Amino acid sequence: MVSPTTIYPVIWQEDRVLLLDQTQLPAEATLVEITRCEDMARAIQNMMVRGAPAIGVAAAYGIYLGAREIQTQEREAFLSQLEEIAQMLRQTRPTAVNLFWAIGRMLKTAYETLGSIEEIKSNLVQTAHNIQTEDLQTCQKIGDNGLSILPAEPAQLSLLTHCNTGALATAGYGTALGVIRSALREGHLARVYIDETRPRLQGAKLTAWECVQDGILATVITDSMAAHCMQQGMIDAVVVGADRIAANGDTANKIGTYTLAVVAQAHEVPFFVAAPLSTVDFDLPNSSTIPIEERDPSEIYQVGETMLCPEGVAFYNPAFDVTPAALISAIITERGAVKPSELEQFHSQQMV
Amino acid sequence: MVSPTTIYPVIWQEDRVLLLDQTQLPAEATLVEITRCEDMARAIQNMMVRGAPAIGVAAAYGIYLGAREIQTQEREAFLSQLEEIAQMLRQTRPTAVNLFWAIGRMLKTAYETLGSIEEIKSNLVQTAHNIQTEDLQTCQKIGDNGLSILPAEPAQLSLLTHCNTGALATAGYGTALGVIRSALREGHLARVYIDETRPRLQGAKLTAWECVQDGILATVITDSMAAHCMQQGMIDAVVVGADRIAANGDTANKIGTYTLAVVAQAHEVPFFVAAPLSTVDFDLPNSSTIPIEERDPSEIYQVGETMLCPEGVAFYNPAFDVTPAALISAIITERGAVKPSELEQFHSQQMV
Repeated sequence: MVSPTTIYPVIWQEDRVLLLDQTQLPAEATLVEITRCEDMARAIQNMMVRGAPAIGVAAAYGIYLGAREIQTQEREAFLSQLEEIAQMLRQTRPTAVNLFWAIGRMLKTAYETLGSIEEIKSNLVQTAHNIQTEDLQTCQKIGDNGLSILPAEPAQLSLLTHCNTGALATAGYGTALGVIRSALREGHLARVYIDETRPRLQGAKLTAWECVQDGILATVITDSMAAHCMQQGMIDAVVVGADRIAANGDTANKIGTYTLAVVAQAHEVPFFVAAPLSTVDFDLPNSSTIPIEERDPSEIYQVGETMLCPEGVAFYNPAFDVTPAALISAIITERGAVKPSELEQFHSQQMV
Repeated sequence: MVSPTTIYPVIWQEDRVLLLDQTQLPAEATLVEITRCEDMARAIQNMMVRGAPAIGVAAAYGIYLGAREIQTQEREAFLSQLEEIAQMLRQTRPTAVNLFWAIGRMLKTAYETLGSIEEIKSNLVQTAHNIQTEDLQTCQKIGDNGLSILPAEPAQLSLLTHCNTGALATAGYGTALGVIRSALREGHLARVYIDETRPRLQGAKLTAWECVQDGILATVITDSMAAHCMQQGMIDAVVVGADRIAANGDTANKIGTYTLAVVAQAHEVPFFVAAPLSTVDFDLPNSSTIPIEERDPSEIYQVGETMLCPEGVAFYNPAFDVTPAALISAIITERGAVKPSELEQFHSQQMV
């Protein structure tokens, strides 16, 4: 039995994708029709869909939407145009490894289908469906695997999370928020504390919305309050997601994650990363070469219509930071919860 | 020679106070006339004036504005009504010790003036002027004393600060931002990084505005980015203010300060508290009994007209946190920069 969630960020309907426009949450839950690859690229770029696994699902459908518009019946020309579509989608969010992983899997499907162009197209939409279904199952496994590693005491835990790693960020259920959903289902959750997650406020807007939808008791705090909450003994464990994990366990995730890891260690609060193995880049020995996307300063100086800052000041807006493996108590994957140093054991078994 | 600042949050003009309405910054620099004690209490409560020393100056004038309306010529009745005024002002911001200190000094003036009620009133306005003038001088000394303790290398420092501790928060010049002003004057400043300081965004709104006004190169970041900046080697030292310091050096300051102290220590970045000795509560052996003001949740869920969070979620909004003395490299006061453990040496010399 899985805790119910009715939240799905990417929905395939007959011949099109419906995206839940996450830029409009929590005020409105609007579904946007996407029928063309370029619109999907823009939706990913503009964070209408966001969260590494959800981006992977969206990009997979994006590849198919692009593929079905290719007119040629000539295999080499088709594959060449498909590579161009893939390249366009790859450029939307440079840090998210799931994006590259999903695109790679779609291309592999195309290259390995030896039949007609129509057969390739048919296999592409099927692969996109598979990526979506597998991600949902993966999240449910991650959630349940988290149960084995969460502190046994107290009986009902207060967990802190950052950004949005829930149903909205995945095919459904969520990674870190999936662990929290599983804890709730088992009667092991008192409350989730949610970092608002500046600058884009995905915690305040998205995670809080999900929690209200699914009946999870939730308290929103500003990012700056987490250490104080730990000092007051209010937090039993931290559970966050990941955008990209190096082979040694170094983890790139939403800006502010590294702060949480440092303050968690200072308070001896366990710090867990929950992510599918597709987030692990086994070709990357450590985090030193992970590119950190820098986003537009307006994310900092503007909230809604309100300009927060005076003219003439500068801004620095890195979207991610890197948490060294040494600060991570365990990485919770669909194959189990392991220490960062044990991650490599999954390498040979990994599905590509 | 002192770096110029033309910013004064509390201005006495003939028979009234002009407050620079800090809730309207950085969009507008509006002066609001205050002629009555109740309006001053409301202005402090609503954070039209904020920052511990500026609150002290404002409260001192508030006492005088209340005193001059007392009709009685009978000393006991006058003092009794003055105590009521003091009590109203004390309730505006329970954490700020400068508030209590300034009110106490005003009451002392009243009790020690043995002449007529008119003489008491005259001495009260003079004491308020003195508190203001002394605070400005104190800030300039704090700023200059900071120079002796800032790292000598590199030649031009990148300093990180939190909240607003500048001219706006004091009678003028500032405490932590005063140290930064003095570093700038000596050619020892490369840039100041400013935490935006959620929830009320005093860094993004006020400190950034001051820096632009006075030509200090400044970069605004979200609170969650400070650890990442330290990890990248971008920060040479942290300088923050204080709302209340216990005798052992434990420091209550704007929420998020404690986070900065923890991450600064993890990166071996010096962490300085700059504050007048009036901020030190020598009657308080440590921080365990410092009350932490909890403010309205709308500070978290609303920015301008924009509602950030869904209905149905809970909030926790502590306005301050406590940084243990062990995390503080030095406390910079008007008498010099000392280790927290050396703070007590000032106790016997302290002016009351």
